[in-house]
Amino acid sequence: MHADDSIPTPDHADAPHLPDRSIAVLMPAAGSGQRFGTQSNKLFASLGGKPMWIQTLDRITSRPEVGRVVMAVSQEDRDHFASRLDSGVFDAELHQCQVDLVLGGSERSDSVQEALRVIQNDPAVTLVAVHDAARPLVRGQDLQAVFAEAAKSGAAILAAPLTATVKRDLGDRRRSVTVDRRELWSALTPQVFRVDLLVKAYQHHNGRPATDDAQLVERMGHDVALVPGSTDNLKITYPEDLLIAEAILSKQNQSS
Amino acid sequence: MHADDSIPTPDHADAPHLPDRSIAVLMPAAGSGQRFGTQSNKLFASLGGKPMWIQTLDRITSRPEVGRVVMAVSQEDRDHFASRLDSGVFDAELHQCQVDLVLGGSERSDSVQEALRVIQNDPAVTLVAVHDAARPLVRGQDLQAVFAEAAKSGAAILAAPLTATVKRDLGDRRRSVTVDRRELWSALTPQVFRVDLLVKAYQHHNGRPATDDAQLVERMGHDVALVPGSTDNLKITYPEDLLIAEAILSKQNQSS
Repeated sequence: MHADDSIPTPDHADAPHLPDRSIAVLMPAAGSGQRFGTQSNKLFASLGGKPMWIQTLDRITSRPEVGRVVMAVSQEDRDHFASRLDSGVFDAELHQCQVDLVLGGSERSDSVQEALRVIQNDPAVTLVAVHDAARPLVRGQDLQAVFAEAAKSGAAILAAPLTATVKRDLGDRRRSVTVDRRELWSALTPQVFRVDLLVKAYQHHNGRPATDDAQLVERMGHDVALVPGSTDNLKITYPEDLLIAEAILSKQNQSS
Repeated sequence: MHADDSIPTPDHADAPHLPDRSIAVLMPAAGSGQRFGTQSNKLFASLGGKPMWIQTLDRITSRPEVGRVVMAVSQEDRDHFASRLDSGVFDAELHQCQVDLVLGGSERSDSVQEALRVIQNDPAVTLVAVHDAARPLVRGQDLQAVFAEAAKSGAAILAAPLTATVKRDLGDRRRSVTVDRRELWSALTPQVFRVDLLVKAYQHHNGRPATDDAQLVERMGHDVALVPGSTDNLKITYPEDLLIAEAILSKQNQSS
């Protein structure tokens, strides 16, 4: 009766390449370790022998389309990030990629906006990709696919079909109805947009609550495309997630 | 911007106790190891030093309200389950609980229906709880809470608020809209019903597709209540899930 069939890893082998270094990636990284149960930023936790955020940087910048990364960090963590970048733990030369740090805001949207300011007048950058620094397992082929779709339509996000049975609460949890999940997707990142589109979306934002950047773009009346992404592109939130991530990582390394 | 706040473990300390042994639990257990990547039933995999299905049985039958369990198993696995039960790996005496095996069908709903036939004329049983055998981590207090709510209203399921950002595909994945997730819940198990209600729901079922038992009851016009359950009540589907389950189990054992 349960229809949650196995979801194969999407095959995007035919996605076109974009011009090298035409994409800037914005990574909000100012989060705390609160839900993660640590005093320090969860991004400093070790995954596959490296800090999680370095794993994310490695994945993102191994795509030739990515020419810049802007990380929005907290005042408290700024020195930590800066010293690690300076010490060569991430090899920017190798990846031919410029990595900048900016001070993030208290809300995630403030952080994205600060990072956006850094790249919005860079003539080499045509697309901007917002990516959770806590999603270190994103696959190269998924990046390529969502970049290609955004280049075509202006706005695209990675997403995975919902597998859970979903209920809508019709009032005080006393009555519920089953939601048709066939058209429902769980949003992942990156979320990728034409630079001018995201800049305009933030100009219209005015602090209204939004769950993600795609919703800001959607509100301007611009279509946001869904690109099927691998479900193993998980967001590390709780300490248990690190165990899953280690398992997925070693499986990915085995099969590559 | 992301509103997925930490979800505290629900506190159901004030849920009333029901009469001892008035609940029968139906456990569909006829699944294959296909998605789990093993030749044998995933329920035979070891978790915390015991087969997964024994862990589930232990949790379920440690509730005094539960007097019977009916497991729907495949022809192939029947001997395995029977011999383990006979050998005392699960101590039915200790739990004062009768465990029966029936042959399940090809669909999950067929299995539930077969199990339902075994208990529907037992005068001691007033409520029936359908529980995934692959959810071994369900907490005692969540069981107590969903049993109590079903005793009151006739139909109740454990559920957890959706934390992912959800998008609805408006056509060919070219256009999407953000779904208000505030009223959306992910269905867990057990799903608990008055016996006569579930019997009637299956009489009206007629093989129409349904994602779960709650949907069958809902279709008859009966309200199904949502009872907030712990998110660590996960369903073991993929091998990675076992790693998470081990982690959660050792955490639960530490704090109990």
